[in-house]
Amino acid sequence: MGEPLFVIKIGGNIIDDESSLSSFLTSFAEIEGNKILVHGGGKLATRVAEAMGIAQQMIDGRRITDAETLKVVTMVYAGYINKNIVATLQSENCDAAGFSGADGNLILSHKRGADKNIGDGAEYGFVGDVDKVNVRFVKQLLETGIRPVVSPVTHDGKGQLLNTNADTIAQEIATALSDSYDVSLIYCFEKRGVLRNAEDDASVIENMDFTYFEQLTQNNVISAGMIPKLKNAFAALHAGVQHISIGHAKDIRMMVEHKAGTQIRS
Amino acid sequence: MGEPLFVIKIGGNIIDDESSLSSFLTSFAEIEGNKILVHGGGKLATRVAEAMGIAQQMIDGRRITDAETLKVVTMVYAGYINKNIVATLQSENCDAAGFSGADGNLILSHKRGADKNIGDGAEYGFVGDVDKVNVRFVKQLLETGIRPVVSPVTHDGKGQLLNTNADTIAQEIATALSDSYDVSLIYCFEKRGVLRNAEDDASVIENMDFTYFEQLTQNNVISAGMIPKLKNAFAALHAGVQHISIGHAKDIRMMVEHKAGTQIRS
Repeated sequence: MGEPLFVIKIGGNIIDDESSLSSFLTSFAEIEGNKILVHGGGKLATRVAEAMGIAQQMIDGRRITDAETLKVVTMVYAGYINKNIVATLQSENCDAAGFSGADGNLILSHKRGADKNIGDGAEYGFVGDVDKVNVRFVKQLLETGIRPVVSPVTHDGKGQLLNTNADTIAQEIATALSDSYDVSLIYCFEKRGVLRNAEDDASVIENMDFTYFEQLTQNNVISAGMIPKLKNAFAALHAGVQHISIGHAKDIRMMVEHKAGTQIRS
Repeated sequence: MGEPLFVIKIGGNIIDDESSLSSFLTSFAEIEGNKILVHGGGKLATRVAEAMGIAQQMIDGRRITDAETLKVVTMVYAGYINKNIVATLQSENCDAAGFSGADGNLILSHKRGADKNIGDGAEYGFVGDVDKVNVRFVKQLLETGIRPVVSPVTHDGKGQLLNTNADTIAQEIATALSDSYDVSLIYCFEKRGVLRNAEDDASVIENMDFTYFEQLTQNNVISAGMIPKLKNAFAALHAGVQHISIGHAKDIRMMVEHKAGTQIRS
């Protein structure tokens, strides 16, 4: 099924820590072959919004993206974070180029509908659910040696930018490219994998299939925050992504060899 | 000398006016063939800096780009403005993708040296002077039908982003591509061209060669603000750019046919 392709997602916890981010990017630059980096947001958007006096509305722990917050998200995610990651990777001889979903129509989405609103009918605001990844464009970039760095901002094709979950973007890119490449989708976060015991960093579950996932969920072994991430992972696996793993950003070199983290299996 | 290529620069005055920008982008989308848009900054960076309490240092009318200001410039120019232009062009069926100079190593620059400091030795700060345009990457983009939208932020190849003059970026891109394309470099601003009489918008100088430019400068016909722009234009012409004109953004459709604005001639 074609050449290997690594779709690697890093979250806000890594982005917020300068030295973690820097050593992750050095490792990312060293990975051979086709690779795509998808990054989340981190706390900088909140800090910039606060500094600008834009109130952050949270409902049920979810950020509401009103028009002013979307401005900040676009500035911080697609601007500051994305361009700094690209400049760092370029300095490590990795030919990175940064993209939002609007660039080259990379990721088309639609504004989340009223049917998916939060609890009491509050709207998520300018949040996008992904419709389509532009496979042709991504392949063209990879074929010319570019390493795409994708920020969690998409567009609806009608001129509207939309804040979009980075895990979902990574999953959608990995799925869309799984017909053309042997894709490894790797979620990096601040633990060495899915843990059997949240208090014990050494209790990494090396392999997890869906039956085991359901069993662990029923027994409340898996933390609430991990459940949507794992559901996303299983969805990607069922949609054709060849390899999926979850682990620590600092283990990325071993994870691309499937030698660290939790492997998600069918 | 190859296919036509339009390198079009729009400045802050157009970007700051939502309806001017919108109608300019509609016209830009309609231009056939190869085209690159280079955009300046506008007042939004100043407003964001003020909102965040970052003092803007100006020396001799020039903004000093300290570390905090560079953050704002990267957020606003490479993030907010660039991505909103791209999303608007995409909605007009123009396959735009946005780039800073770091993306794909598009524009390599170096931090302006102490020899070019302002008056009393004050430094410009994180300001870049262009060294090299990545012609191969730009050609690859154009050949796959992408319309690059370039923000005035470059990098030094060592991980440092740098604030860079948009006129200069347009000139450097046009010059670098003039070996491969029949390049028209078009500077759009808020006048219909270089004026014989600053008070009379109809007094556009249709053609200007260097002798005429020197004569008009000596007679104080040309405003101080236009002189560096025109010097840049003549430099680009001497470096091989085939066609150069200066005129109003709303005349862009006529300018690509060399039927409006001031034509710079050797």
